[in-house]
Amino acid sequence: MRATVMYGAGDVRVETVPDARVIEPTDALVNITRACICGSDLWPYKSMEPSETGRRMGHEFIGLVEAVGPEVRTVRKGDLVVAPFAWSDGTCVFCREGLQTSCLHGGWWGGTELDGGQGEAVRVPQADGTLVVLPVGKDDALMPSLLTLSDVMGTGHHAALAANVGPGKSVAVVGDGAVGLCGVIAARRLGAEQIIILGRHADRIALARDFGATDVVSERGDEAVERVKELTGGLGAHSVLECVGYEQSTLTALSIARPGGAVGRVGVPQDASIPAAQPSFFNNVTIAGGPAPVRAYIEELLPDVLEGRIEPGRVFDRVTDIEGVPDGYRAMDERESIKVMIQF
Amino acid sequence: MRATVMYGAGDVRVETVPDARVIEPTDALVNITRACICGSDLWPYKSMEPSETGRRMGHEFIGLVEAVGPEVRTVRKGDLVVAPFAWSDGTCVFCREGLQTSCLHGGWWGGTELDGGQGEAVRVPQADGTLVVLPVGKDDALMPSLLTLSDVMGTGHHAALAANVGPGKSVAVVGDGAVGLCGVIAARRLGAEQIIILGRHADRIALARDFGATDVVSERGDEAVERVKELTGGLGAHSVLECVGYEQSTLTALSIARPGGAVGRVGVPQDASIPAAQPSFFNNVTIAGGPAPVRAYIEELLPDVLEGRIEPGRVFDRVTDIEGVPDGYRAMDERESIKVMIQF
Repeated sequence: MRATVMYGAGDVRVETVPDARVIEPTDALVNITRACICGSDLWPYKSMEPSETGRRMGHEFIGLVEAVGPEVRTVRKGDLVVAPFAWSDGTCVFCREGLQTSCLHGGWWGGTELDGGQGEAVRVPQADGTLVVLPVGKDDALMPSLLTLSDVMGTGHHAALAANVGPGKSVAVVGDGAVGLCGVIAARRLGAEQIIILGRHADRIALARDFGATDVVSERGDEAVERVKELTGGLGAHSVLECVGYEQSTLTALSIARPGGAVGRVGVPQDASIPAAQPSFFNNVTIAGGPAPVRAYIEELLPDVLEGRIEPGRVFDRVTDIEGVPDGYRAMDERESIKVMIQF
Repeated sequence: MRATVMYGAGDVRVETVPDARVIEPTDALVNITRACICGSDLWPYKSMEPSETGRRMGHEFIGLVEAVGPEVRTVRKGDLVVAPFAWSDGTCVFCREGLQTSCLHGGWWGGTELDGGQGEAVRVPQADGTLVVLPVGKDDALMPSLLTLSDVMGTGHHAALAANVGPGKSVAVVGDGAVGLCGVIAARRLGAEQIIILGRHADRIALARDFGATDVVSERGDEAVERVKELTGGLGAHSVLECVGYEQSTLTALSIARPGGAVGRVGVPQDASIPAAQPSFFNNVTIAGGPAPVRAYIEELLPDVLEGRIEPGRVFDRVTDIEGVPDGYRAMDERESIKVMIQF
């Protein structure tokens, strides 16, 4: 089968790899129909050390179940399923608490041991805990929005929950990538009154406004902090969604939070540290978040997608087949594209 | 009047200073009957640069109102009052939200502009917002416990709330100083099932056990992390109270939190940073807390003190008069004493 392998920074190849198959009795074999490239895939694309063996890529996909192991109970051959970006057993103490990203028997797609989502098929471990059956056909018009439930929409929702977004609150979203844009959707969905997006790409800002952003801050650093303060009566935002992961963006996020507010962070940290004292400690700003347990959110968000109340699929602005994946990485890295969908 | 002035690291003097008096119409003049030395006073005691003018010290006190300005409504001459470690107007947006340490018109005792609590009298700005009248006489046997409502008991309670302590939870308390010990009281009061104290001073550990600690970890660093994991079924504690403020203690706190758990930090950060990625981000550990809005907690905790359900005053193991304050600093700094009360 064909699959995406990264061999180092800037070196993404589509290759023929061994066919995926059921190995464990709890596995499912899924033939992928839709997948995508994630902003977090750009981190290794910028910095990965050269590797002889390479690393299988992709962690967001929808597909058709082709086969299941004898212990699989909840999905069957022919089901269309969506997978979250981490697989999980659904039964351990953390899964039961809704934190599937800390599953005691779970893990992450791709790497050197497992199939990745950017390929023709995937062996899905812990299929019962991991997969959610979709009640639509594989070419339904909602496919782009349904695909975001595998990561970015659930991640934006997680940021909003971690930042205590709620009715009447002021919210600032740091970052206008796909996750930041989904954060805007999530903030609006949870009743935020004011939604300030921090970003500077015209196409993304336009989409953010469509999704419910009420204000735009295109400044950076201290100027951005000042501008958000102006927009929030001098106090800062109740809830801040950190959707980037750099030290500078994190510091900005902490600086624009109102005293007693919260920063929900979902951008994978790329740098060393958070300042311990100012501004978070003295302002009693809560720092929460981490890898989103999107598995916990699929059922919650699914009706809103199916009934058209949210349209996170609009973050996809380019579609490719599997052979076009390397150019998709390039396009996202150069900010030509917000997010690339892969159609099989 | 006599008051405590710090001129540099290790240089604490009791001197005659100008008498405190009412200046603003919202002021009260309070003659202090009880005060104390705080663990946070030891930070400048270790590190303060030499100063010509010095810095007035003390932020925890009980006293008798001697006079009030014409706009003061809620306290009157003769009232016995307790003050929180920050003064606040009680009416601004943050005070109304219960975050009086971020009061828009509030501030901190001592320094170069205001009286400190370690002296014979204090001008109290924003008296209506700041002071709470106590329904007992000035020499009541409960005086030590009532005095802890000015800081350490409210601070331990804040750490517990920030760490989401609740019924049935496992709690770890990093630090066996007065705040950590009050954190044990707070955790028990809020229904924690398991309370692990991390500390190594026999007298403090004994007190922690009296206050409700169920387990003691005297190791440090990685060994402490391993021991707490052992005590919590390999998972870590739901709630961790960081009551020290060093980078190492903060890292320990983050490392012993269970995935999805929370660290409530109230130790004033003495170092630069918190690691951004591990262990907090990938475990979805929430970092919350800051200077405790103890003013918000006085009314809540007062009945428990008055009715003897909690005895935080047991953290005081030494009493001095005002002239003995410099030796009190020395005794606390050398860990001869947990916390020193000053009696006038």
